[in-house]
Amino acid sequence: MEQPLLGGASARRCCSLSTLKAWLPVLSWLPRYRLKWLQMDLLAGLTVGLTTVPQALAYAEVAELPVQFGLYSSFMGGFIYTLLGTSKDVTLGPTAIMSLLCASVVGGEPHRAALLSLLCGLIQAGMAILRLGFLLDFISYPVIKGFTCAAAVTIGFSQVKNILGIQGVPREFVWEVYYTFYKIPESRVGDVVLGLLCLLLLVMLTYMKSSLGSEDDSTSSRAARKLVWTVATMRNALVVSAASLVAFSWDAFGHHVFTLTGKTTQGLPPFQPPPTSDTTANGTVVSFGEIVKGFGGGLAVIPFMGLLESIAIAKAFASQNDYRINANQELLAIGVTNVMGSFVSAYPVTGSFGRTAVNSQTGVCTPAGGIVTSIIVLLSLAFLMPAFYYIPKASLAAVIICAVAPMVDYRVVAKMWRIHKLDLLPFCVTFLMSFWEVQYGIIGGVAVSGVLLLYSTARPQIKVSDQGLLVMELGSGLSFPATEYLSHVIHTQALQVSPPRSVVLDCHHVSVIDYTVVSELRDLLRQFKLREVQFIFSGVQVSLRHHLATKVVMGKNYQNIEKIHKTLKKILKTIEKKIYKTIEKIHKTIEKNLKNYS
Amino acid sequence: MEQPLLGGASARRCCSLSTLKAWLPVLSWLPRYRLKWLQMDLLAGLTVGLTTVPQALAYAEVAELPVQFGLYSSFMGGFIYTLLGTSKDVTLGPTAIMSLLCASVVGGEPHRAALLSLLCGLIQAGMAILRLGFLLDFISYPVIKGFTCAAAVTIGFSQVKNILGIQGVPREFVWEVYYTFYKIPESRVGDVVLGLLCLLLLVMLTYMKSSLGSEDDSTSSRAARKLVWTVATMRNALVVSAASLVAFSWDAFGHHVFTLTGKTTQGLPPFQPPPTSDTTANGTVVSFGEIVKGFGGGLAVIPFMGLLESIAIAKAFASQNDYRINANQELLAIGVTNVMGSFVSAYPVTGSFGRTAVNSQTGVCTPAGGIVTSIIVLLSLAFLMPAFYYIPKASLAAVIICAVAPMVDYRVVAKMWRIHKLDLLPFCVTFLMSFWEVQYGIIGGVAVSGVLLLYSTARPQIKVSDQGLLVMELGSGLSFPATEYLSHVIHTQALQVSPPRSVVLDCHHVSVIDYTVVSELRDLLRQFKLREVQFIFSGVQVSLRHHLATKVVMGKNYQNIEKIHKTLKKILKTIEKKIYKTIEKIHKTIEKNLKNYS
Repeated sequence: MEQPLLGGASARRCCSLSTLKAWLPVLSWLPRYRLKWLQMDLLAGLTVGLTTVPQALAYAEVAELPVQFGLYSSFMGGFIYTLLGTSKDVTLGPTAIMSLLCASVVGGEPHRAALLSLLCGLIQAGMAILRLGFLLDFISYPVIKGFTCAAAVTIGFSQVKNILGIQGVPREFVWEVYYTFYKIPESRVGDVVLGLLCLLLLVMLTYMKSSLGSEDDSTSSRAARKLVWTVATMRNALVVSAASLVAFSWDAFGHHVFTLTGKTTQGLPPFQPPPTSDTTANGTVVSFGEIVKGFGGGLAVIPFMGLLESIAIAKAFASQNDYRINANQELLAIGVTNVMGSFVSAYPVTGSFGRTAVNSQTGVCTPAGGIVTSIIVLLSLAFLMPAFYYIPKASLAAVIICAVAPMVDYRVVAKMWRIHKLDLLPFCVTFLMSFWEVQYGIIGGVAVSGVLLLYSTARPQIKVSDQGLLVMELGSGLSFPATEYLSHVIHTQALQVSPPRSVVLDCHHVSVIDYTVVSELRDLLRQFKLREVQFIFSGVQVSLRHHLATKVVMGKNYQNIEKIHKTLKKILKTIEKKIYKTIEKIHKTIEKNLKNYS
Repeated sequence: MEQPLLGGASARRCCSLSTLKAWLPVLSWLPRYRLKWLQMDLLAGLTVGLTTVPQALAYAEVAELPVQFGLYSSFMGGFIYTLLGTSKDVTLGPTAIMSLLCASVVGGEPHRAALLSLLCGLIQAGMAILRLGFLLDFISYPVIKGFTCAAAVTIGFSQVKNILGIQGVPREFVWEVYYTFYKIPESRVGDVVLGLLCLLLLVMLTYMKSSLGSEDDSTSSRAARKLVWTVATMRNALVVSAASLVAFSWDAFGHHVFTLTGKTTQGLPPFQPPPTSDTTANGTVVSFGEIVKGFGGGLAVIPFMGLLESIAIAKAFASQNDYRINANQELLAIGVTNVMGSFVSAYPVTGSFGRTAVNSQTGVCTPAGGIVTSIIVLLSLAFLMPAFYYIPKASLAAVIICAVAPMVDYRVVAKMWRIHKLDLLPFCVTFLMSFWEVQYGIIGGVAVSGVLLLYSTARPQIKVSDQGLLVMELGSGLSFPATEYLSHVIHTQALQVSPPRSVVLDCHHVSVIDYTVVSELRDLLRQFKLREVQFIFSGVQVSLRHHLATKVVMGKNYQNIEKIHKTLKKILKTIEKKIYKTIEKIHKTIEKNLKNYS
């Protein structure tokens, strides 16, 4: 099987070019580029481009920036990711979540958004160089799911006002909900009708695409399927264009029944560094330090969220299309994109799930497809901006609502309930706190799951069984936060009863032991001696044996017992080995038979 | 064996009074109080009192407060702890570390010190009521040791200037060291000679006490030993009194060669709530909010450190004298002492190691000894203050240096190196950061040990062995931070090699599994299926079996294997049980023989 793209791991195989190839994955796939791939990349790039343009305009709305800034943010990613990316599918650009975060941090100031992009990019690139990608390991799925659910609800609801054509609704979620309902009587009929129509069309097209079968193979039905697929994939561009056309016609006849995007700046953005200070409306100069202070926690959350979103997407598609990505290299690609983006007035970007899915489904072969997408965005910036005047805001709102709706995954709650109920706690904390201030959700969720993790190390399961002696089995490892608890259990169950009882502590799950544990165990041993009962360690791993004063207690007898244990374990291992081999044989036979049958 | 004191656990045995007894341990031991105990309590209280007075004066110096504040802080603990304490040995009062922390937080302002005491007390009492004593589990021995070593060095060195009689040395450790050496030429001969003499005397007396044998049993030598013991135990009071006498004599003859304590306020402190605002030297009023803001992290560190110090001491003596303490009840006792103390101008106090040791060695039977100590402190406040004028600062410095010297425990480094090298990291971080700002040391150390703990859950040991199939054994539990790493190992070792290999994942150390892990394992299973190799879970605990899609992969064969496994385990368990019984028999025989021999 041929793999169009190399992951970081395989790129490091050869020696002389290996480092360079690891930092510039393009060097791995470009020499092997084929004409067949070009055709697919062109098609995919074009398709993604036609999704990107309307989405970028809509997300700029979420970010509370003029629509052209959505497009400014959409073309740098394609170029940079082609050079630095390790996934063929990922497309970088504005996303719903990043737009929401950007709005909540900079509050709709384009200058500051670009500066935020620069700083986020630098932080991300710095993390990539320091190989800090592993920090992502500490964000559990429940936190991610809680956050995406809450963000989807927040973003989706924020668009209801645009569908209703209501003005002057505040951004804080609670007040937004209140005022949206309060102002329903003010809603404009034109916007409501158009918005609902767009929504209906988008939902229908999405449904058609998802119910496309692939069983029938006659030429005519294949062509029909291809047509449906194309229309459904381009649905955003089609719906927005159609709505604009309608708006333009009504406008031409003098009926201003729709809320339109309005005047936008035409042309490409200037290439210049983002301003490091800012002037407010009343003429006060805000210094660089003050702006950065204003960003506050956003400077920690946005780079991290960007990374998280992109890696989650890259991993999902890597798993589906059977290749591996390199988290640190992905981080570098996003970081450089944000740094370079800030020079063209972009706001922070990351991998977009929707567009990455389109890219993958269209059959992209290399990240080069991104270049095509970027060119389409640049072309629309150069030539299409006057047409964007007539895009009804309600149609963009419909695009966003349809984009975020699949992010609300309620089934995940049932799954967590079944697998590990405690996971619902970080999920709920993240979900609820995200409505307060979207970045606090992630921080709160990570903190809660960290605390749960620490708590589980502080309170290990201790199975106590009476076998003449009290046998206590530690359910997991033993580290310093657990010593006090263990000591408490032993004291109450063995030392404070009368008469005191001997204890066997089964340590076979313990693989590391620290100074605090050893000190406490030594003290316990003394207590047992004082009461003339035994405290015996069993199943101690070889590497730890010299730390525990086992030999002092057990002397030669202990060694004998250990010998018996060892022999038994060896026998068990041999049996296991044989069993494994048998399993494999059985499996192979079953599979062979299955193949012969089918 | 009779136990003079009841721990929290046994106090809860009966039902009607149990709650009250748990909150007021005095109710458990007072009804059983005996005249024999009274004698011991009186003696111990007196001995501790004679240690408390000179130490309190000296520690006030460390806290940068006038000496009488040391005594103000020393008497409330005795009364409160008698009612609320769960250890017979612990004595509450000013300590070197709390004094240092207090100085670094309030910078020698008596009003603020009392306010700090109130707030710390409230926080501690609140923590006790919320049962937050378990938080102490997260402070490992390396952090405690690192902190006490650094505090001892800081405190000890801060007294060198008093022995040299140097003025105007700043408080920051680095500058203190620099200026102390820089100003050596300015040192006063009288102070140096007296200080060194006091030090010599104290060291000699300490040494004499520690080398007191107990073999000889003739009446005369027993009396001699008792005399030495008494003199050595009262050494602080004796040395300070002698030094004061010398200073008084020289002063009477008009030679002012010693730096003296100087004028102090006589009499008992007024009973009044601590002021909630403050006026600075230049007349500015500082509001309550500003004062609290000024305390900053101190409000987190001081209550915690107080608790930590006291619990560590209580646990050490509980273990030695064979009783159990209740951490939350201890916390309540300290909290109430600090709250009440703030009404008599005290600064934050906690359990003192030195005085608790004296208390225990003198044979105290109940916490009532503390009342005697408190009365002695009150008497010296009422009548002895004029005499305190003549106490040379150098003699107090000698008392402090001798008190903190045993806290520097360099052997602990070697022990950590032997047992768990990684423990040296939090130790060193705590030790070094404590010199920067003493409370940062604890915070830094706890943070580092928390990160190490999380890191160990993120990177579990994975033992890979080739037994036809690749067998991977997880060295410990599997929680969400480890999923990415596990997936990486499996991918690189089994899936990305050609041909791909089957893997057996030995999960017998895994006792809990979360949603993130299950999701990742499900994805891995898909990858294995895609490549037509097997991914088999072995040793899965019964409670987890339904979460892992094991049966899907292994079908009936798996069940058979599990049956064999189970039978083998049962056999092993039976053998183990027999072995345990044999061990106990052997032990008993050995011990019986040993007793017969001796």
